[in-house]
Amino acid sequence: MVPHLTTSLTGPLHEIERIVLDQRPEIERWFRTQWQEQEVPFYASVDLRNSGFKLAPVDTNLFPGGFNNLNPEFLPLCVHAAMSAVSRVCPDTRRFLLVPENHTRNLNYLQNVAMLRRILEGAGLTVRIGSLIPDLQGPTEVETAGGEKLLLEPIQRRGNRVGVEGFDPCAVLLNNDLSAGVPSLLRGIEQPVIPPLAAGWSTRRKSHHFHCYDRVVEDFAKLLGLDPWFLNPAFSQCGKVNFAEKEGEECLAANVEFVLNEVREKYKQYAITEEPFCIVKADAGTYGMGIMTVKSVDDVRNLNRKTRNKMAVIKEGQPVHEVIIQEGVHTFESVDGAVAEPVVYMMDTFVVGGFYRVHTSRGVDENLNSPGASFVPLAFETNCHTPDCLGKPGDPPNRFYTYGVVARLANLAAAVEVRQLVERESALEVRAANG
Amino acid sequence: MVPHLTTSLTGPLHEIERIVLDQRPEIERWFRTQWQEQEVPFYASVDLRNSGFKLAPVDTNLFPGGFNNLNPEFLPLCVHAAMSAVSRVCPDTRRFLLVPENHTRNLNYLQNVAMLRRILEGAGLTVRIGSLIPDLQGPTEVETAGGEKLLLEPIQRRGNRVGVEGFDPCAVLLNNDLSAGVPSLLRGIEQPVIPPLAAGWSTRRKSHHFHCYDRVVEDFAKLLGLDPWFLNPAFSQCGKVNFAEKEGEECLAANVEFVLNEVREKYKQYAITEEPFCIVKADAGTYGMGIMTVKSVDDVRNLNRKTRNKMAVIKEGQPVHEVIIQEGVHTFESVDGAVAEPVVYMMDTFVVGGFYRVHTSRGVDENLNSPGASFVPLAFETNCHTPDCLGKPGDPPNRFYTYGVVARLANLAAAVEVRQLVERESALEVRAANG
Repeated sequence: MVPHLTTSLTGPLHEIERIVLDQRPEIERWFRTQWQEQEVPFYASVDLRNSGFKLAPVDTNLFPGGFNNLNPEFLPLCVHAAMSAVSRVCPDTRRFLLVPENHTRNLNYLQNVAMLRRILEGAGLTVRIGSLIPDLQGPTEVETAGGEKLLLEPIQRRGNRVGVEGFDPCAVLLNNDLSAGVPSLLRGIEQPVIPPLAAGWSTRRKSHHFHCYDRVVEDFAKLLGLDPWFLNPAFSQCGKVNFAEKEGEECLAANVEFVLNEVREKYKQYAITEEPFCIVKADAGTYGMGIMTVKSVDDVRNLNRKTRNKMAVIKEGQPVHEVIIQEGVHTFESVDGAVAEPVVYMMDTFVVGGFYRVHTSRGVDENLNSPGASFVPLAFETNCHTPDCLGKPGDPPNRFYTYGVVARLANLAAAVEVRQLVERESALEVRAANG
Repeated sequence: MVPHLTTSLTGPLHEIERIVLDQRPEIERWFRTQWQEQEVPFYASVDLRNSGFKLAPVDTNLFPGGFNNLNPEFLPLCVHAAMSAVSRVCPDTRRFLLVPENHTRNLNYLQNVAMLRRILEGAGLTVRIGSLIPDLQGPTEVETAGGEKLLLEPIQRRGNRVGVEGFDPCAVLLNNDLSAGVPSLLRGIEQPVIPPLAAGWSTRRKSHHFHCYDRVVEDFAKLLGLDPWFLNPAFSQCGKVNFAEKEGEECLAANVEFVLNEVREKYKQYAITEEPFCIVKADAGTYGMGIMTVKSVDDVRNLNRKTRNKMAVIKEGQPVHEVIIQEGVHTFESVDGAVAEPVVYMMDTFVVGGFYRVHTSRGVDENLNSPGASFVPLAFETNCHTPDCLGKPGDPPNRFYTYGVVARLANLAAAVEVRQLVERESALEVRAANG
């Protein structure tokens, strides 16, 4: 279930929303049984796009920043969910080492770290912040956008355990997506690392995530008697691209053609008159870097230098060699006239909040996760604020519920994906040990 | 952990509060490990009394009404907790039969039923309301205080299952405390009954609950290095009392003397200058009936007719033969000048809200659960409402946290108590089958 939140949509319910709302008990029962079989990620955020005729996840973040962008009224929900997550992962634990990203000048990101610490402390944990910054000389205090103080401490390794000075944590919570690779400091430690190291961007691939999502959404769509395409963006991938050297253009063109054709067919089937488009993005990466909108095969042939440079390198200077070509989903939501897409936050099996990512200078078919984006926290629905009006005729349906359902489908896919990543890593380790 | 709520206290933190707040991580870890061993009740509410020097539960309700008195902002917390409870009790379930009390003219109680239904529906269940009203002819619509409609349907038994017309639930959730005994309709059914039938007032005893609480609080106080008395009201019991026939007065007098002496000793030890008192109440019962304040042995000798009548019979006309004599805990909290006591609501392992029970015509040493009481829902703490000020100096400590801790101790005692009740019932059934 999902808190009753405001959405920017005010028109009549779309078909997908109505089907989902009508089948809530069946859907919740289904999720309960799924979570008996899969280990739910500690936390995750999912970027959604809602075009009215289609509602789909376009990115699932296993190291979510942006907790500072949630409405502070959601803190108790986060804390409850964190309690649940903690008792699942390590009931005996009370000391957590939180490992954030290295960028200390992004004060909003640091505010996210402060919020996370607050949530974990609320769940009854003692939290210290262990930094992976290579040249960090000693405990270093930084100030967040909200004026809170954070003490970043160098992570120390002692044998098979890590900690910070005078603090031996029972678990390590990563809020660092390991784009620069898995640091040797964290390899082979005996404390649980959450999410597992294999879920970092040095081994994770978006295309793998969406392969897992394919299967999850197929089962789910069967339950609802729905074409899974309504909840699932078509995609393909290219494994050998070098934008700087103009290599792999043919692969890219062929796959763009493949995805666009698939979308054209579906648009025809459902008499949708919008113009199909694709999003090409780095298969391993985040932060809205290395992303472009493509409307025809010509768009990926003869890329100009500027675009090639933009696509060639992403976070932490990592070169892009693999890309995912994903069906573009228009967003037909807007906040104050600006294009908006919902981002949903989850901890454990719970939806704990969300916000709209809003961009005043982007179109309905563009990536909004780019400089200039702002965030509008979702609030609890306030049309009906007294117990008296709950359940009365006219009580607004929980539109946000559907977003929470789709976000949880992506979370379920992430659970399958992470399990497979961990299994593959174990298999590789066994092979290395035997070789 | 406990949401950050307002309390009516504004002075400096009392000693107990400071000790509890200082040891949050240790306390939360302790609760997590306790809930691995004990099956947490689906829901419960706990009446607390806070005298500053002492903070103790005085009553634990396993069939809580009053969900309508919670702040509607707490609904998402309740729904999350209910999801957790449901996935624990019966993950495959999606149809719940909610069995309320029989009083259809208490519109506020009916509003509580409507809120419960809403919470369960929010958790993704299909809910129908099965009534135990003996002469209910067919589905009967009633209107709640909030103007919501409830359809009360006669419970039907088919073999070893119960349901309502066309509805075979997977579980039965009791919001009826079975004061009138266990209805044969519900005996021996194969669906899980929550809480178990043995937890109803025909077998449950307050003194048994507080025996269990003794042990829970002893462990907990050891953890904190605290005298358990600070969290625990002394008590005793009399098993053969008949107020109407003036029987058992000697037992009552002796036990009042015993409890008062224990309290006097503790007051002396801690230099407390208040006047000790006891509360005498029916050992099996609720709704604030059959309760009196006693300040000396003389108060229970030569009871006048009015008091004897008041004490003789409680809810559903049940005669009182067993009483608990409990140390009285002054309440030093007030709301708008009226005497107040906090009531804390829990679902699963979570604190989901609470309210102050307020009485304008009662004293600090009297039972407030009596006609004329009103309810002031607790709100989230709003001194600090933006993420910017979270964690800044001056950020108010979560005073309500301590209430949540003591309420959860009572909930833990209830878990032990219910397990023992169920075990005893099973043993009796086995003996009956063998005899």
